[in-house]
Amino acid sequence: MQVVDLIRTKRDGGRLGDDEIRWFIDSYTHAHIADEQASAMLMAILFRGLDAAELATWTSAMINSGERMDLSSVGRPTVDKHSTGGVGDKASLVLCPLVAACGAAVPQLSGRGLGHTGGTLDKLEAIPGWQALLTPVQMLRQLHDIGVVICAAGPGLAPADRKLYALRDVTGTVESIPLIASSIMSKKIAEGTESLVLDVTFGTGAFMKQLDQARELAETMVRIGTANGVRTTAVLSRMDTPLGRSAGNAIEVTESVETLSGGGPADLIDITLTLAREMLALAHIDMDPAPLLNDGRALSVWDAMIRAQSGDPAALLPVATQREVVRAERTGYITRLDAFGVGVAAWRLGAGRSRKEDPVSPIAGVVCLAKPGARIELGEPILELHVDDPGRLPAALQALQGAISIADEPVEALPLIADILRA
Amino acid sequence: MQVVDLIRTKRDGGRLGDDEIRWFIDSYTHAHIADEQASAMLMAILFRGLDAAELATWTSAMINSGERMDLSSVGRPTVDKHSTGGVGDKASLVLCPLVAACGAAVPQLSGRGLGHTGGTLDKLEAIPGWQALLTPVQMLRQLHDIGVVICAAGPGLAPADRKLYALRDVTGTVESIPLIASSIMSKKIAEGTESLVLDVTFGTGAFMKQLDQARELAETMVRIGTANGVRTTAVLSRMDTPLGRSAGNAIEVTESVETLSGGGPADLIDITLTLAREMLALAHIDMDPAPLLNDGRALSVWDAMIRAQSGDPAALLPVATQREVVRAERTGYITRLDAFGVGVAAWRLGAGRSRKEDPVSPIAGVVCLAKPGARIELGEPILELHVDDPGRLPAALQALQGAISIADEPVEALPLIADILRA
Repeated sequence: MQVVDLIRTKRDGGRLGDDEIRWFIDSYTHAHIADEQASAMLMAILFRGLDAAELATWTSAMINSGERMDLSSVGRPTVDKHSTGGVGDKASLVLCPLVAACGAAVPQLSGRGLGHTGGTLDKLEAIPGWQALLTPVQMLRQLHDIGVVICAAGPGLAPADRKLYALRDVTGTVESIPLIASSIMSKKIAEGTESLVLDVTFGTGAFMKQLDQARELAETMVRIGTANGVRTTAVLSRMDTPLGRSAGNAIEVTESVETLSGGGPADLIDITLTLAREMLALAHIDMDPAPLLNDGRALSVWDAMIRAQSGDPAALLPVATQREVVRAERTGYITRLDAFGVGVAAWRLGAGRSRKEDPVSPIAGVVCLAKPGARIELGEPILELHVDDPGRLPAALQALQGAISIADEPVEALPLIADILRA
Repeated sequence: MQVVDLIRTKRDGGRLGDDEIRWFIDSYTHAHIADEQASAMLMAILFRGLDAAELATWTSAMINSGERMDLSSVGRPTVDKHSTGGVGDKASLVLCPLVAACGAAVPQLSGRGLGHTGGTLDKLEAIPGWQALLTPVQMLRQLHDIGVVICAAGPGLAPADRKLYALRDVTGTVESIPLIASSIMSKKIAEGTESLVLDVTFGTGAFMKQLDQARELAETMVRIGTANGVRTTAVLSRMDTPLGRSAGNAIEVTESVETLSGGGPADLIDITLTLAREMLALAHIDMDPAPLLNDGRALSVWDAMIRAQSGDPAALLPVATQREVVRAERTGYITRLDAFGVGVAAWRLGAGRSRKEDPVSPIAGVVCLAKPGARIELGEPILELHVDDPGRLPAALQALQGAISIADEPVEALPLIADILRA
């Protein structure tokens, strides 16, 4: 088989056969196809797409490039959640222990943040001692004993995706729905979960700016999951405003613990309970998760999870000593607080990274003291910027230019959940 | 400047700015942009194209990646010819000495064959002693003294094209009109010629299968030449049948010498004189080239050219001892002799190469004993296959399956020259 013939076939709008796709993925994973040939193929796919049958084969070839975990020893129904990313999106931190407290096992293999969206592992690493790297044996034992693990995916999980993702990042071939869908789903299916709820975000702070793009991605992923025997549901959620009151690492952990303790902001509780109900439905657990946020049961699973990964749930988290306040420039109602602007500001303050090898600051981030719908007086604080290097403030403030709108009259908030797609 | 931003711009249908194009070409030539990023850009260009302004900048950046030769010391009007390739296309071998005999200087920097189309240098190398590699000083002296040189382009000529061409070859990004046009024209413009006639072929044996594609390529190249101060004309010529009676190396030299001596097949004479007249017009030489094929003047320039490059024009050329004849399977008129089939057969017999580092056989090739229009009896020979390794015969015969059509009535031949585009 000649890779240039396969590239030409896709370039000219043809279909790739199952054997051709399997050969391409296998050969690229083993470096028998050069990066420049793979990137040309990815660009051709970006223009021409992959049909349902091609995408099913492409995804299963990525799964088969590594091992598929066997979670049968866990002894509980397994269900995971994946979000396509947002600003202030700490839902996993609350949701995973909550669903485990209801009796499911949540095997969340997670990633780190890149650009303006945060990563779950980066947030948890703000907890002193907490470890993201577990062996498969440790992961299985923790799932059996506590019902939840949030840890880094090992190199053996869908190695083809690891290589293709790095290549897409530098070749302008990220923005392809079949490539995004197969990347996410290959890792989640290889993880071994029986069922999966996807939080597919759309809006300024999301990767997908428009609902229709997000819907297409969601439908594609639900189809892939179902075809591979994973019960899959997708929630379409709005990401125009940061979720909750904070975007950063330690400050998001604090907000999550507050929510696990019966407090927390309404939007975070809303998305968490929506996702939890879908996860429990897929796991065939007939239980209302809401009370467990108030009665300490979800919190005690959180404590157990943090301790099992060498963290101290009672430890004080690092806090910023340098803070800068952004104040209202007029009196009125906040009508907009742009998630993208806040996300970029938090990133520039040090909460995020530009390249995957960059470190992140645990304390940096943005706290939202007031959110859309709130009545505010001229000069009142809206945002509080946390930073350990004040030299980072100007770039963060620049990212917030035009991110806040205040008007004489409030505008009605759009619902957080736009739709739920069940298989 | 970030290359991934430029790739995204082109991918999404935007225009690249002049500085961006110059930076891209310069950075890629100096290996500051990775192959996988350049191939993604090339694939995006294949889908999105380059507009006239982008293409002008792209081509001049390729020219400026190396030196542009100065032919002012030659003391004659300079004019070159380039063909987009064909089967049995030995026109340069006759044309270049002929135009030089008329008083112009022809500085033909040429390439080698790849796939089913032959290369002028490969053909000339069938002549014992003949050297394709000349220094710039040797080339200028020969142009001054004899008026014609056919030699290999040095590495200093449009090095960006050299790198991009090799990349396109392995990444399925050859078939893009702006990329083809800029590749050809950057080398021809850097060569320093004042004027240029392009033989843009179309048909089964050509790179462009359809006349409309060939016309678009021709128009694009004429525009680039004119914009860069090179007077440029394009001839659109049909390549459905091999040109002349042979496709190979030594056998094409023999046929060329026959044509320079007042003989030769009508189609080769037709295309040669058409191209010669356009070249002489661009060189402002008011002269009919036809008589010089009969009176020995073109032949004596050929002899001088071969001798100047260490070849012996009187040497006997190598001939094949192994020959296989393909005979008519019925009686009637030959209505079709497919150039692509004959080209692939010659290639598989050893006349062409699959990879640029492969050697070619001087003696291998296909001789056409009868061509379309001829009346033929069952069992009469049509093709003679020349080979030095008989193991190559089966693959060559397979390539000729279906390449010959014979019917009860002759069909009218389509004209060889479809159109001429003058600036």
